[in-house]
Amino acid sequence: MRIVLSLILVSGWLLASLAEAGGIGSRVFVVERDSGSLAIYDFVERELLPQRITGLGDLRHATMIFSPDLRFGYLATRNGQVSRIDLQKLERAGVVFTSENSIDNAISQDGRYIATAEYVPGGLTILDSGSMQVLTKHSATFEAGEERVPSRVTGVVDAPGNRFVCVLIEGAEIWIVDASKPGFPIEHRIKTPQSNPYDAMITPDGRYYVVGHIKSDRVSLLDLTRPGEGVREVSLRDPEREYERGMPVKLPHLASWAVAGKWIFVPLVGEDRLAVLDRTSWQFERSIPLRGHPVYAVRAPSEREVWVSFSGEADDAYVQVVDVETLAVSDTIRVGRRIYHMDFTPRGSHVLVSANQDNKLFLVNASSHEIEDSVALASPSGIFGVWRAFRVGL
Amino acid sequence: MRIVLSLILVSGWLLASLAEAGGIGSRVFVVERDSGSLAIYDFVERELLPQRITGLGDLRHATMIFSPDLRFGYLATRNGQVSRIDLQKLERAGVVFTSENSIDNAISQDGRYIATAEYVPGGLTILDSGSMQVLTKHSATFEAGEERVPSRVTGVVDAPGNRFVCVLIEGAEIWIVDASKPGFPIEHRIKTPQSNPYDAMITPDGRYYVVGHIKSDRVSLLDLTRPGEGVREVSLRDPEREYERGMPVKLPHLASWAVAGKWIFVPLVGEDRLAVLDRTSWQFERSIPLRGHPVYAVRAPSEREVWVSFSGEADDAYVQVVDVETLAVSDTIRVGRRIYHMDFTPRGSHVLVSANQDNKLFLVNASSHEIEDSVALASPSGIFGVWRAFRVGL
Repeated sequence: MRIVLSLILVSGWLLASLAEAGGIGSRVFVVERDSGSLAIYDFVERELLPQRITGLGDLRHATMIFSPDLRFGYLATRNGQVSRIDLQKLERAGVVFTSENSIDNAISQDGRYIATAEYVPGGLTILDSGSMQVLTKHSATFEAGEERVPSRVTGVVDAPGNRFVCVLIEGAEIWIVDASKPGFPIEHRIKTPQSNPYDAMITPDGRYYVVGHIKSDRVSLLDLTRPGEGVREVSLRDPEREYERGMPVKLPHLASWAVAGKWIFVPLVGEDRLAVLDRTSWQFERSIPLRGHPVYAVRAPSEREVWVSFSGEADDAYVQVVDVETLAVSDTIRVGRRIYHMDFTPRGSHVLVSANQDNKLFLVNASSHEIEDSVALASPSGIFGVWRAFRVGL
Repeated sequence: MRIVLSLILVSGWLLASLAEAGGIGSRVFVVERDSGSLAIYDFVERELLPQRITGLGDLRHATMIFSPDLRFGYLATRNGQVSRIDLQKLERAGVVFTSENSIDNAISQDGRYIATAEYVPGGLTILDSGSMQVLTKHSATFEAGEERVPSRVTGVVDAPGNRFVCVLIEGAEIWIVDASKPGFPIEHRIKTPQSNPYDAMITPDGRYYVVGHIKSDRVSLLDLTRPGEGVREVSLRDPEREYERGMPVKLPHLASWAVAGKWIFVPLVGEDRLAVLDRTSWQFERSIPLRGHPVYAVRAPSEREVWVSFSGEADDAYVQVVDVETLAVSDTIRVGRRIYHMDFTPRGSHVLVSANQDNKLFLVNASSHEIEDSVALASPSGIFGVWRAFRVGL
């Protein structure tokens, strides 16, 4: 009897410790912007982990990338601080300040190097992902009259062939950096036809680098398989819409584009529509009318739907679901106020949504559109899962 | 001096233990067929780990799937044995025998259930992925004259909506099982127009279930978003080629199809060509001539290339690279004799290749096509990385 009881107790303890252990695959790191910390939510266990990772700096526009071996995440912040997070221990494992003011980071395909794009001083810094030491700093400058002055750098991504790609804002120049060669040479410097690039993205297949320009309805497109052919311009303007003469088409945030099926979906901030481009030709196909001004378009892993979030108090609690086959809105879902970020779980069963004003993270069933779970967080923003390690450009 | 030396020693020890620690993201499990064991290779560290996981059963046609939280892998074998592998400890953590003879397994999108397809006794078994207990057995039978006799089951995959899909060989019937409902009901039973299905696959977007039939040049296609519309037949026959009357078109192994760009690439075993179908219409587009009889076509994550392996002594050491844009062979690479399996690393920088007769695993640079590393293994076969947890149908 005593033996049986002990066995039951031991089994119970084993099961409990197994459940507590969880696993790194289903945990997402959620930026709590105001407190400069990361919360951790497990979408399989459906629970918020008790710990916070704190002291991470200014987390406006923070991005987190993951090493290919899934040992570490690297969080880049606006104040130049790069923090390394141990994915097993869920604690900080190294910090380095690369600049006074930075934006975006990327990890090389071989996992050995981190690149951070910097505003002040303008440039690209390459870190050793193991030692967290700065290896190289490429200063970014451009000609202003007779002197060279610093340029801000943004939109850094990893690209096939162990490359980094970034763009100089004032310099109006795309850089392709080879992370496999000593000194990390800038192997291509490609001028963009328009001035003032402000953000960029790479398509999920790693082929095209797309650069947005301030006050322009045209983006610059670089085919990374043929960098020598230079940049081509692509229009986001709907020829069937009338524009006020000289009206600036407002800024799409480039990470918000969704590539799905035969199409590219572009939320045009300040307009109540989603532009649809042909994925192969990059020609404008049509506009999809929306309930408000779109911010993010996120593709489902099936590429059969794109989920869109909005700006403005009247709309920012809602998500609209766009059907990729019919190119029409198939559903409108109220989730929570001021939605800042959305991401699908890797096999597409659910969508994680942060609602900044409601201080909540939601788990939405991607088929039924029901909210299946929510947890309280302080000023939640970006949501980052470890599967990003396995995708190009994230 | 002594303090400095101690610090150096401690740092050295820390670095060494860090390197030893490795991470689960870049480790692949490689089946060693003859010894019924799994070897583990880390493609970031470029080393074979010293341990083996042994006693895993009959590993002909073994498949390994991974839980969404990345705590466990599950290996299904031909002798009905399902072994659970702890991905951190790299040791067996549970075993169950579901049948006398099985093939293929799948994990539900929520990670709670494992389904195994069985030959003897014919059926589909559902396991609890946590307790490793059998929850449900769906016996598969079909009408033979006046009695019902058992049917073998194969081609089990996970599908969107927390479903499992499989096909009955003698029963010639596709089953869609709802893994979210008590008892795991078979919600659809769909007859295939032809008899003797022998294998199946799901497209990477989770939309189509494709069933191959013995001695047929047509496959059955089920649109999982419209199962009520039933099965449609798709021809793999090249209208420009002459076939001997009644010549059986030999069996394509369905897991060997590659979906890339606008196309689906189908290796037709016993022919020296790759059939190309349109990804949207499923119409036959053309044949690509190859150096021998293809076995596997594997797409690069960029979807810009498909790598093809071959059967037969004259060809089985080679891989041919097919360009998805030009639909032509762009390179032929000699890797090692009797290539059994290939897989790209998740961001596409390298290809892992097992050469069974040479008893080696190779790491091939996907850009330069150089062999950058190789390790000795005994009778290596299937190669399984944890990123499979994040993809539909694997």
